Amino acid sequence: MQSDKALAIVEKQLKKPRYEHTVRVMETSIKLAEKYGADVKKAETAAIFHDYAKYRPLEEMQRWIEKEQLPKDLLQYHHELWHGPVGALMIEREVGIRDPDVLHAITVHTTGCAGMSVLDKVVFLADYIEPGRAFPGVDEVRKVSEDDLDKACWMASRNTINMLVSLHRKVYPDTFHAYNDLLNPNGGNA
Amino acid sequence: MQSDKALAIVEKQLKKPRYEHTVRVMETSIKLAEKYGADVKKAETAAIFHDYAKYRPLEEMQRWIEKEQLPKDLLQYHHELWHGPVGALMIEREVGIRDPDVLHAITVHTTGCAGMSVLDKVVFLADYIEPGRAFPGVDEVRKVSEDDLDKACWMASRNTINMLVSLHRKVYPDTFHAYNDLLNPNGGNA
Repeated sequence: MQSDKALAIVEKQLKKPRYEHTVRVMETSIKLAEKYGADVKKAETAAIFHDYAKYRPLEEMQRWIEKEQLPKDLLQYHHELWHGPVGALMIEREVGIRDPDVLHAITVHTTGCAGMSVLDKVVFLADYIEPGRAFPGVDEVRKVSEDDLDKACWMASRNTINMLVSLHRKVYPDTFHAYNDLLNPNGGNA
Repeated sequence: MQSDKALAIVEKQLKKPRYEHTVRVMETSIKLAEKYGADVKKAETAAIFHDYAKYRPLEEMQRWIEKEQLPKDLLQYHHELWHGPVGALMIEREVGIRDPDVLHAITVHTTGCAGMSVLDKVVFLADYIEPGRAFPGVDEVRKVSEDDLDKACWMASRNTINMLVSLHRKVYPDTFHAYNDLLNPNGGNA
């Protein structure tokens, strides 16, 4: 799908600041895909649609999780985690995007998971480091993203775990699996 | 088994400081079991044997994990995690202790897990707070252990995750499951 057509579709689903974030994630994903050898068009499409479901009513997302082939344990975790997996299914049904690589990158863009593809990592990282983000530690991740995709993704998952634990919040298992999986085999990502 | 007989068995397996730690874990477990309504005799036995395998050769523990009904993913994590599950099986085979409650408490004493019994929590916490321990934050956990077993266990798992993440080390999934499971249903353990 042409990017202007795709952007027009998501613009109707999102509030203005979230749409502007989406454009920045798209631009960042394209750069990262070029640098790390992911399919640039797939990265563009996944980035444009990654927050498609962000403003759908919680009750609607809950119904999708209950009735569709989605992990039921999502209902035990913060609803911020729902829009990735639900959104992937919604854009398949409502927009007709069927590329499994694109859908998977959208599914895991918030939590990460073990065994992420380069495309998954590109969108996950772009969402974390796009220029509008101001998380504690994001500049350090931006710097590492210039040379080491895995380490930058690991740092993002580490920062997310630190943030959630400091707030006494549950951590979705896929976030932990991403953290463990992205550590290098020698046990350090120093 | 009488405690003096049990202590004599483990004393042969352990170096002196580790044996002295074991005695303190036993004493702490008995106090916590009395306070929180676990079976005091089971707590005593589990505590006495919790580090039974601590000084067995790594190669021997690795063989047990490979050949017995033990989670194979342990081999992908730090060997410090092996002596609990392997030790439970060893004391069943070598000492003849067959009580599944005792064996389970020994199995999970290092990592915790989701759905821990009161006995599991008592031994897990006693191992963390016994008077010889000097982890950062242990005094705060000791204080909470006087009133709230779940919260104290949660704090111990939280501190362990923080320590491992700060050292860029993998975290065994059961540790994360314990952390999530021990958070109260309202999402906070403040």
